[in-house]
Amino acid sequence: MQQHWLRAWVFQQPQQRQKNIKRTGNKRVAILVDTETHMMPALAREMVRRGHNLVIGNVAKGLASELKKMGAEVEVVPGRLDLAKASSVQKLIKAAQKRFGGVDSACIRTGSHNTGTIMDITTDDAQSLYEGNMLSTIYALQALLKPMLAQSSGQIVINTSATGLRPAAAGTMYSACRAGANMLVRSAAITAAPKGVTINATGTYAMNYPGFLDDVGWEDPKVQKAVLAELPLHRLVEPEQAAHFVATLIDGVGTSQAGQFFSIDNGWAFQ
Amino acid sequence: MQQHWLRAWVFQQPQQRQKNIKRTGNKRVAILVDTETHMMPALAREMVRRGHNLVIGNVAKGLASELKKMGAEVEVVPGRLDLAKASSVQKLIKAAQKRFGGVDSACIRTGSHNTGTIMDITTDDAQSLYEGNMLSTIYALQALLKPMLAQSSGQIVINTSATGLRPAAAGTMYSACRAGANMLVRSAAITAAPKGVTINATGTYAMNYPGFLDDVGWEDPKVQKAVLAELPLHRLVEPEQAAHFVATLIDGVGTSQAGQFFSIDNGWAFQ
Repeated sequence: MQQHWLRAWVFQQPQQRQKNIKRTGNKRVAILVDTETHMMPALAREMVRRGHNLVIGNVAKGLASELKKMGAEVEVVPGRLDLAKASSVQKLIKAAQKRFGGVDSACIRTGSHNTGTIMDITTDDAQSLYEGNMLSTIYALQALLKPMLAQSSGQIVINTSATGLRPAAAGTMYSACRAGANMLVRSAAITAAPKGVTINATGTYAMNYPGFLDDVGWEDPKVQKAVLAELPLHRLVEPEQAAHFVATLIDGVGTSQAGQFFSIDNGWAFQ
Repeated sequence: MQQHWLRAWVFQQPQQRQKNIKRTGNKRVAILVDTETHMMPALAREMVRRGHNLVIGNVAKGLASELKKMGAEVEVVPGRLDLAKASSVQKLIKAAQKRFGGVDSACIRTGSHNTGTIMDITTDDAQSLYEGNMLSTIYALQALLKPMLAQSSGQIVINTSATGLRPAAAGTMYSACRAGANMLVRSAAITAAPKGVTINATGTYAMNYPGFLDDVGWEDPKVQKAVLAELPLHRLVEPEQAAHFVATLIDGVGTSQAGQFFSIDNGWAFQ
């Protein structure tokens, strides 16, 4: 019986690009920064559950020992890492290479926030948002792609924002820089994909974490009602839900996705 | 006979927001910069045909006198205007106010070009592309919106690039900054729309003008074949075609569009 042409084609493809890569304990290694807030501590736990050793920076108090108790080896890069400096993700990669022999995947949560309409943007604010949202993405991708292109494998998620998809008049320059970062990911993904490296972006809105709750003034019941009314699912995004999704893009099982932006927002951005 | 509800609704809307605005000769006034190359000289001619007086900068040799012979009053702002400086579009607006009493519409062609994949971007190149493509858009919008919001009318087109919609690995940072500029337009449009001011963006690809032809090396028949193969319409975009489209967004007849990006590319970006 003749094989279906598609099946025949699939089996000609390289299935195990990573089989020659040796890591400590034969575990995959993920770089996560930060692991302090947002979905990131939940993502660290989920990546450990999915069999990864971790290299982490800007770490929540107590998280590293919790992750170790879960069975992972965890390398903590000390000090405050400023992602708008090229050296920051480079430090994480060097730590991964030294401790584990390399890196397989990464989630980098970039971002500098600001509010204001088009009429409120100052030259200095614009510069700061450019550096925190776009230059940081360039630096993260350049640092990660260097070893990943060389080893012909790797999975990267850059976390940006749902406002990179849906415009936000009250955060005009923020939204614009996030859209710019999403396009950096799209173009970089075209360069990386032929080497077996996937790059995607994610962004959240209305997540149940202090950063969002404080920004909107969640303690006011009227605010709660207004925020939930904007969300087709009428509830906040839990960090664990976002982590569950993002882990699937970087856990090594493989995705068929490159260059995409995924909004994790209970429906906000597609209205 | 009862009117259709939609017809009744339409006739309740303000049809002539501009009726109290006095301009020299009762003609509308458009600001165009540059008018040197690309679709811009063709757009200047088309706006004159559509009954506008013009304020122009960075002007092609001989164009101003040609436009005057066509029947328009034309104010030329002298010197080289660098759109990455806040003062440039401000100068055009001051000239429009002094000569004609104000401004009704504008097309600003922003842009700094560069090539390179994600791995080629230097910090300096990134900064230069940010300033030429995003900061220039901020400055142009801020300068134009100040009088337009005050007069509750105006139409703006910021010309960016089709690569703001479709990623370009060989111009990764360029594409990203154009996407960022398109999002600036989207967010700014939300702020401007309630005042009756429309802001949209356009971008071209494969236009029959020296900038594109020189960049791709059009004199080589193999290049011609490769470029045309990328275009569903299998021909270059003529500057007059792009001008025809853009004029429709800023000629005062009114559009129902705000915050949009229109690609003028013979089909390139939507593949």
